[in-house]
Amino acid sequence: MTRVGGIEAGGTKFICAVGSRPDDLELGEIPTTTPEETIRRTVEFFRAREPVVSAIGIGSFGPIDPNPASPTFGYITATPKLAWKNFNFAGAIRESLGAQVAFDTDVNAAALGEFRWGAAQGLDNFLYLTVGTGIGGGGMVNGGLMHGRTHPEMGHVRIPHDREQDPFAGCCPFHGDCLEGLACAPAIRGRWGQAGESLPDDHQAWDLEAQYLALGIASWICTLSPQRIVLGGGVMRRQTLYPLVRSKVFALLNGYLEAPEIVPPLLGAHAGVLGAIALAMTI
Amino acid sequence: MTRVGGIEAGGTKFICAVGSRPDDLELGEIPTTTPEETIRRTVEFFRAREPVVSAIGIGSFGPIDPNPASPTFGYITATPKLAWKNFNFAGAIRESLGAQVAFDTDVNAAALGEFRWGAAQGLDNFLYLTVGTGIGGGGMVNGGLMHGRTHPEMGHVRIPHDREQDPFAGCCPFHGDCLEGLACAPAIRGRWGQAGESLPDDHQAWDLEAQYLALGIASWICTLSPQRIVLGGGVMRRQTLYPLVRSKVFALLNGYLEAPEIVPPLLGAHAGVLGAIALAMTI
Repeated sequence: MTRVGGIEAGGTKFICAVGSRPDDLELGEIPTTTPEETIRRTVEFFRAREPVVSAIGIGSFGPIDPNPASPTFGYITATPKLAWKNFNFAGAIRESLGAQVAFDTDVNAAALGEFRWGAAQGLDNFLYLTVGTGIGGGGMVNGGLMHGRTHPEMGHVRIPHDREQDPFAGCCPFHGDCLEGLACAPAIRGRWGQAGESLPDDHQAWDLEAQYLALGIASWICTLSPQRIVLGGGVMRRQTLYPLVRSKVFALLNGYLEAPEIVPPLLGAHAGVLGAIALAMTI
Repeated sequence: MTRVGGIEAGGTKFICAVGSRPDDLELGEIPTTTPEETIRRTVEFFRAREPVVSAIGIGSFGPIDPNPASPTFGYITATPKLAWKNFNFAGAIRESLGAQVAFDTDVNAAALGEFRWGAAQGLDNFLYLTVGTGIGGGGMVNGGLMHGRTHPEMGHVRIPHDREQDPFAGCCPFHGDCLEGLACAPAIRGRWGQAGESLPDDHQAWDLEAQYLALGIASWICTLSPQRIVLGGGVMRRQTLYPLVRSKVFALLNGYLEAPEIVPPLLGAHAGVLGAIALAMTI
């Protein structure tokens, strides 16, 4: 199979790859600094690998403009990382390398990777959620990646928050106690005074975390009726969260709707860049 | 244009029509009683109109099975109306009339009607919401009506509920204070002791109603990024709700995302049956 390029563009590092599938992947990492320096080093990565790829997929931090019909297609738009704001990311890669470029959110790219090689194979309606520094969601509806006016920002849904049970105000700079503000990794650290990784399995933090995630997930089931939910990200490395989340989703739906399977992703640490490779293959 | 048949199947009445567009519509109403009697009268309606249509769209109360690949496609599934539970609705119409049948939820049918002739023309990602006896949602994602494992049950999303501000416990028999439980017409009546229609425009009921609807809508914007939201149903006949809902959605998004337009439906009382006509035209 033809090898293509993939870029998982994150806020702290870019993971670049040339390859064609999970077991054919040549990888490199570049720290995210200024757009100029980061793009120059990214371009060098691809130029150094002959034959230079003619198609590159980018799964990017955002918000971004993923609409090919828009004049700002391929731009990072309203990011708080000011040097990257209104940066024509897809255009810079396209012009430097003469390659065709596919461009989407990091989460949609990872979802596409799981669809192609991982936990969402054969489905045309599924959700992919990642719970880490932030909470992001993407996936497919009607066999296409989730887009619209722009793209989902699923972590920012509002959920019930009982301030007597949990006085933590939430850490989202825009919404305070939206789902991300209550349940992302920094929220766990802020609420309990230490990183989630250092809390034991039987700490009450996990029951509360599962409850918040279940409230978001139950509402997404009511909204999208996904065939499966792939739930990953750093916080979900705590394996004991999965049965807790499943039982709380079941309780919240209360027999009105059946819950779909809620499963971990299969592609591991390379899910994002593999998704970018899968994106490039859609060109 | 060829005339087709449409059935808007509601819990209290069926609206049947033969026609091809909003200004070519021959209508009839049949009370919803037993499946046998209601289907017999529905079939008579279509047989009485020559030439008998060869394609019929059904927008049905539910839950239903809208998946053409499923063995129970066209069935009403888990409805609390016991006589209709596990009733092969599409099959009964198909066999009695020898017509091809398209089958979807009442809400998705109405959404398709607004897409074809109303407030959602030219869009491929929009939401259609109806706020009345219940709260329902449907619409399009990636140019197709919203389906998945089954279909959306959007009214049942969970939203923040401040019991000090609003001690009403919610009226959803499954979830108590989900969005439908807090903001459908029976919830307004239950909370204030009188029907919403009898409350004046400056009653505090409307500010609270707008806040609940805005909480649901803001979360759907984060989840689906719709290009437009068409918001209708009996409760939304209160025109003063529209500017209230818009300003509260704007406040909830707090500059993180732009809100799409939130507009009333254009097809009025015949939206449902026109949607069923539009469904039949997809065959």
